Amino acid sequence: MKNDFFERLFNFSPHAIVGEYPLNIKEYLNDMKTLVDGTLERYIPSINSYPPDIFNSIRYSLFAGGKRLRPILVMASAKTIGSKREEVLPFACAIEMIHTYTLIHDDLPALDNDDFRRGKPTNHKEFGEAIAILTGDALLTMAFEIMSDTRSMPHINPLLILRAINEVARGVGPSGTIGGQVVDIESTGKEVDIPTLEYIHTHKTGEMILAAVRGGAILSNCQEDELNALTRYGENIGLAFQIIDDILDVEGESEMMGKTSGSDERMKKVTYPSIFGIAESKKIASRLIDNSIKSLEMFGERAEVLKDISEYIIARRF
Amino acid sequence: MKNDFFERLFNFSPHAIVGEYPLNIKEYLNDMKTLVDGTLERYIPSINSYPPDIFNSIRYSLFAGGKRLRPILVMASAKTIGSKREEVLPFACAIEMIHTYTLIHDDLPALDNDDFRRGKPTNHKEFGEAIAILTGDALLTMAFEIMSDTRSMPHINPLLILRAINEVARGVGPSGTIGGQVVDIESTGKEVDIPTLEYIHTHKTGEMILAAVRGGAILSNCQEDELNALTRYGENIGLAFQIIDDILDVEGESEMMGKTSGSDERMKKVTYPSIFGIAESKKIASRLIDNSIKSLEMFGERAEVLKDISEYIIARRF
Repeated sequence: MKNDFFERLFNFSPHAIVGEYPLNIKEYLNDMKTLVDGTLERYIPSINSYPPDIFNSIRYSLFAGGKRLRPILVMASAKTIGSKREEVLPFACAIEMIHTYTLIHDDLPALDNDDFRRGKPTNHKEFGEAIAILTGDALLTMAFEIMSDTRSMPHINPLLILRAINEVARGVGPSGTIGGQVVDIESTGKEVDIPTLEYIHTHKTGEMILAAVRGGAILSNCQEDELNALTRYGENIGLAFQIIDDILDVEGESEMMGKTSGSDERMKKVTYPSIFGIAESKKIASRLIDNSIKSLEMFGERAEVLKDISEYIIARRF
Repeated sequence: MKNDFFERLFNFSPHAIVGEYPLNIKEYLNDMKTLVDGTLERYIPSINSYPPDIFNSIRYSLFAGGKRLRPILVMASAKTIGSKREEVLPFACAIEMIHTYTLIHDDLPALDNDDFRRGKPTNHKEFGEAIAILTGDALLTMAFEIMSDTRSMPHINPLLILRAINEVARGVGPSGTIGGQVVDIESTGKEVDIPTLEYIHTHKTGEMILAAVRGGAILSNCQEDELNALTRYGENIGLAFQIIDDILDVEGESEMMGKTSGSDERMKKVTYPSIFGIAESKKIASRLIDNSIKSLEMFGERAEVLKDISEYIIARRF
């Protein structure tokens, strides 16, 4: 099965369907989403694979209409350093699989107990808890399978691939994303101070965004100072992204969020809006976005896409 | 934190505490268990790390008294090809972390709903379901972090490391271990035919044992015919191991199993003993063990440890 699947992947030419930047950012994001969706489609064995339930469930959550921000960041970061998007596309898709796994596990009854995600019943509502747990496990595992496949990224030095895999694993592990999830669960319904709130955001959301940005750069054999600059970029947009997400939750743009608005308040989750209010939270987010753009200075025009993504995030389209 | 942790690891000399084979197999297994335990101890951040609950929980399950069969197989397989155990020790420890993650998730209420494991309350009984789910996730992720760390296995070609990581990810993914878990859950309480039972065993238990054996050989830069022979070895001991485990469950050696005997019958799980009876199941296991030993012929004395492990498995010590 695996061989077929890679053959299908390599017979597929991303060039055929997407144009080169500069387009306007909306067209770029749409094109990149199409590219990621098409590639993910080829990575996931068909629903005729055995056992069918797990592959149905993987497809259900992976193709639930995500905007593909994280894989797009991988490709935009690689472009900033000078690689082609196709070279890091497998890695970009793996990041989206890991992101999807965290959503499935986060939604479980034992964690956030969410019934809806992106406008559809959450995975455990559709497939039951056992399959939901195993689907998250499967997506995490398949991500590492794709990243470590020596045929996936043949133009990249294996040492750089190992370094990028390591970066991701560290970022989404117990000192990263999972640490954020733990503190988030343990803080729900309690008085939370600002350092704890920052810890939750920078770890639960921030570390994966950072791994996407840094991963794309590492695979592109970036210099140390370039990696430092992109790290500041990733840290700033990561926190901005979460704050904007929380503002959207309060302002009730449930259509855009795909979940019931006000869910943070119902869950008694502490957020930037709940501590600082909406107006101040928007100011903080703007400042973070400005900082993210400033951190790109050394790249000049090469960082045009990353800059546009920053501006798009604050315009609240993600 | 991570740097400290690797410094601690590299200041630790495995040579200081273990002798070279041949010892008798019991001493060898004890020594290897001590080596694996000591190395795992250095891989897991202390309970003073933040957030403490996740690291407490990781330690609770990882140091619950496992026999370390899978990491020992990695080292024994590497030895058969000609590498030193220290060279593959990080990979071996990662395999044990993955094994522990599968146990934690398998025990969850939504899956097997087990209260005891290795004579102690299961992870979710001790820490709650949310932490148990995240602890499994953390162990799986940390395993890939360790395997991909370019400082961990400096003498091994990065392409071989990628290939071994890929092997493990494929083995424990939805077409491997997770596939076995899915079919196992979906078969519980139903009439199951022999091909389905074989699918469950070869995937749920077999694939990880196979990944251990093959991974150790791949990291040691084995030849294709050596890998084929070791694959037959791993397939045979993997299935034998599961059948013997099921026989022990029926015969009620609960002290050795660390869980309540007869749990398969209570869960209405189909097993070799339930289909073929105890006597015939023992014959099948013996035949598999004989086949595993036959598959080692090409290695001569170099495979002495693997052969002794086979004989030890049938003597029901694991």
